[in-house]
Amino acid sequence: MKNTGIKNNVTWHRAAVTREMREKQNGHKSVVVWFTGLSSSGKSTIAHAVEEQMHQIGCKTFVFDGDNVRHGLNKNLGFSRDDRKENIRRIGEMCKLFIEAGVIALTAFISPYREDRNMIRQMVKENDFIEIYCKCSIDVCESRDKKGIYLKARKGEIPEFTGISAPYEIPENPEMVIDTKNMSIEECVNKVMNYLSNKGIIHNSHKMSIEIPS
Amino acid sequence: MKNTGIKNNVTWHRAAVTREMREKQNGHKSVVVWFTGLSSSGKSTIAHAVEEQMHQIGCKTFVFDGDNVRHGLNKNLGFSRDDRKENIRRIGEMCKLFIEAGVIALTAFISPYREDRNMIRQMVKENDFIEIYCKCSIDVCESRDKKGIYLKARKGEIPEFTGISAPYEIPENPEMVIDTKNMSIEECVNKVMNYLSNKGIIHNSHKMSIEIPS
Repeated sequence: MKNTGIKNNVTWHRAAVTREMREKQNGHKSVVVWFTGLSSSGKSTIAHAVEEQMHQIGCKTFVFDGDNVRHGLNKNLGFSRDDRKENIRRIGEMCKLFIEAGVIALTAFISPYREDRNMIRQMVKENDFIEIYCKCSIDVCESRDKKGIYLKARKGEIPEFTGISAPYEIPENPEMVIDTKNMSIEECVNKVMNYLSNKGIIHNSHKMSIEIPS
Repeated sequence: MKNTGIKNNVTWHRAAVTREMREKQNGHKSVVVWFTGLSSSGKSTIAHAVEEQMHQIGCKTFVFDGDNVRHGLNKNLGFSRDDRKENIRRIGEMCKLFIEAGVIALTAFISPYREDRNMIRQMVKENDFIEIYCKCSIDVCESRDKKGIYLKARKGEIPEFTGISAPYEIPENPEMVIDTKNMSIEECVNKVMNYLSNKGIIHNSHKMSIEIPS
């Protein structure tokens, strides 16, 4: 019988490509790896270095940070408590869609409030949220700050600046702590990669020691 | 010299995995394929059928529709003109990130306003936006509607319903029109796949005729 149009296909079932099908095709599971910590604590540097390693072994990844979110999706949000919460909520919802799409989402946001980070943890399935605390003292973060934003915050020119005039709530039970003051980038990246490998998120053969040229 | 910490690596450049690197690895380019048309015009059915074909040939894809966006990222938006615009803006910004991630984003939203669709076209790079008008008369759309939403709209129970009490602005220069009243699903899918193949977005060998079991 000739199929003459969608009109005659109302009982035709939607072709569903599932998360599981994508994960199988990609050869790895999809999760959100959530880096949190003070400004200049190394979140973005580590997230991008991890992504580079993952890309080299064929994983599908994406790094979200202030550069690609605050100027786009969340450009109509400020830094009030409500706006910070909505900022994190939208990022979380977007990460959920990336997980559904089979992509490993790496995020690099200060995300100072436990409540907001736990909101993301609740949003996604158990084991899909990997919280990594980039531990670094504020004096070391300030010494790394080439843009002078800490200096401006100290002068009161930036209101509600995390660590100076707004709180940073240290994660109570993160999946991982990386001490970016005392560990090298290579050590941080290896720690993250080995964790993901041991959890079966990326393939065992992906477990490797890396050397980043200095 | 031993690398003792990120502190000593402030000049280390961010490892950038680019869109081009992802496209090369995936074996196809990334774009947004934007289906627009009345409720029940076949947008979601065609988008998912196209996605299934693409998945089978190894393409990385994701379908956005009301189900996964209105209940998540945009759950704090209604259907006023301003909220509809913000709804489409956020979807557009999200599509931009999926494009950056090397994924082909397929969207299935009524998106009734030319201004909003053109906003997305302006947001992304030239040739990254492929607008497909799902052409179908309102009486056929109504006859397909199993949920009875057209009936409710006719009774005035749903305010600002596109095609009944709110306008649908037909695309003036879409990349493609698919006549879902007179074409079969297979014909619609083939037309989309062949377009993407001819434009070099998916690989030539991906060009194929498909049979969907009825």
